[in-house]
Amino acid sequence: MKLLSNKADDGHIIIVGCGRLGANLANTLSDDGKSVVIIDQNKDAFRKLSDSFGGIILTGDATEISVLNEAGIKKAASVISVTNNDNTNIMVAQLAKELFHMNQVVARLYDPERECVYQEFGIDTICPAVLSTKEIDKLLGISEDGGHNNPGGNS
Amino acid sequence: MKLLSNKADDGHIIIVGCGRLGANLANTLSDDGKSVVIIDQNKDAFRKLSDSFGGIILTGDATEISVLNEAGIKKAASVISVTNNDNTNIMVAQLAKELFHMNQVVARLYDPERECVYQEFGIDTICPAVLSTKEIDKLLGISEDGGHNNPGGNS
Repeated sequence: MKLLSNKADDGHIIIVGCGRLGANLANTLSDDGKSVVIIDQNKDAFRKLSDSFGGIILTGDATEISVLNEAGIKKAASVISVTNNDNTNIMVAQLAKELFHMNQVVARLYDPERECVYQEFGIDTICPAVLSTKEIDKLLGISEDGGHNNPGGNS
Repeated sequence: MKLLSNKADDGHIIIVGCGRLGANLANTLSDDGKSVVIIDQNKDAFRKLSDSFGGIILTGDATEISVLNEAGIKKAASVISVTNNDNTNIMVAQLAKELFHMNQVVARLYDPERECVYQEFGIDTICPAVLSTKEIDKLLGISEDGGHNNPGGNS
């Protein structure tokens, strides 16, 4: 892909899904100097990208091989599928892994019980609800001392 | 509250919103032996709770003081508002903080730019998109060495 030629040597990162997580990730990676291609079926979704986003946007269905090819998947370092649909994410991740032999594939997962399916395919998963639960546990002090911070209070 | 009397001495935890995060959190805390009251406007939402959930469910609007009273907020240790609506979460958090003088209040935040508003009120926030972005950064090896794991590959 011509457009990617300047930074494509070390492999760009393809993000599928420009929801809150996809957009946040794209902005962070782009600000970090990474080459990013972000794909979403809905072109309005790209509004969530920041003004400083320096990557490429691509409107299309990432479960279609032609769209992944257009995103330059053969030269990509990673594919990260973070749409709101677990089935879409697993399908994109499997295409990337099985058909394009990508090493680094990450999929967002809403239903933690399906994690084992992904692991079989060597797909890394992230589950926002599980991460958030752990973080809240930390805030409540449960993971450290089993108690609460500053008990009592002024009520 | 009669129903909470057996474990209420060290304060129960009120969770507002039984979406994926709220349900996951309620299940985890309940399995951990904590007293939990979970509130949602939609009684169908409680289906996400696991069979082992030992807490109390309450159908109602947690921005109404009567509902918070019914949840036993005066004896609660923490309020965690994790609905899908930032405005609801900040409203519940402010009620808990300002009206009921709770020490420990956590609110889910979709829009990270609003975090400073919460901090002014002493409300802890968690932003699933930011947590997930950090986790993906870790998986990509960006936070550690700025590079990628296993470059090259077998493509």
